[in-house]
Amino acid sequence: MSIDGDYDPDNIFAKILRGDVPSVRVFEDEHIFAFMDVFPQAKGHTLVIAKYSQARNLLDVEPEILQPLILGVQRVAHAVRSALKPDGLVVTQFNGAAAGQTVFHLHFHIIPRWEGVALGRHAGGQMADVSELTQLAEQISAMIS
Amino acid sequence: MSIDGDYDPDNIFAKILRGDVPSVRVFEDEHIFAFMDVFPQAKGHTLVIAKYSQARNLLDVEPEILQPLILGVQRVAHAVRSALKPDGLVVTQFNGAAAGQTVFHLHFHIIPRWEGVALGRHAGGQMADVSELTQLAEQISAMIS
Repeated sequence: MSIDGDYDPDNIFAKILRGDVPSVRVFEDEHIFAFMDVFPQAKGHTLVIAKYSQARNLLDVEPEILQPLILGVQRVAHAVRSALKPDGLVVTQFNGAAAGQTVFHLHFHIIPRWEGVALGRHAGGQMADVSELTQLAEQISAMIS
Repeated sequence: MSIDGDYDPDNIFAKILRGDVPSVRVFEDEHIFAFMDVFPQAKGHTLVIAKYSQARNLLDVEPEILQPLILGVQRVAHAVRSALKPDGLVVTQFNGAAAGQTVFHLHFHIIPRWEGVALGRHAGGQMADVSELTQLAEQISAMIS
């Protein structure tokens, strides 16, 4: 899938937002939904998406959606940081399959980094244990302020 | 440098903003300054920073700075895309040295991706040729809308 194209209302994140597919929720408010990446590149890898947008990526998102979305990313990043105390945090956002995007609903990755721990492969590794993800989500969720 | 710490007003991006150190400028407005990364991970690797902030990273930036900054990232990403026609675009933002941050003034990377072309190493490769960067900056700048 290139950068351009139509939004597919049956993409997996749209299904998650509709509740048609389960997810390990971290946080939601009127603008954003945050949940654990099931193919985490590191412990605590969290995704943040806009709830009411049919944007595939950063290029086609409306400014009035993007602004509260990035504030939500910041808020969740704080909580990830407080909960897991990583040495660093990577925030990344992919546009187009060539950039590594696998789900075509705009999303930001928040990926904790620890000194000396390499990143796992994106969307290529093993699916995480849901009970472990749930525990991490609870830790992060408790730190949302 | 950890995620926390004081802002160093003599970091290289602060010097660039003051005009004390040269940079290959792509675009600026009242909120943001965009310029070419001199250690590009790909052709057209562009950085976007807030002009009036002493934020080191996403965690300590003020919401009123972050919102126009992300809209600036979007605007510059459009221009990079129009100018260079990559297959994809990665947007990334590092918090803390453990996450790969090397300059402690909040910045977003916009990195074009082409199918089959691997990314170069961040801040570890060879410094780019300034005349090539200048040509790229002119191409991108011409596409800012």
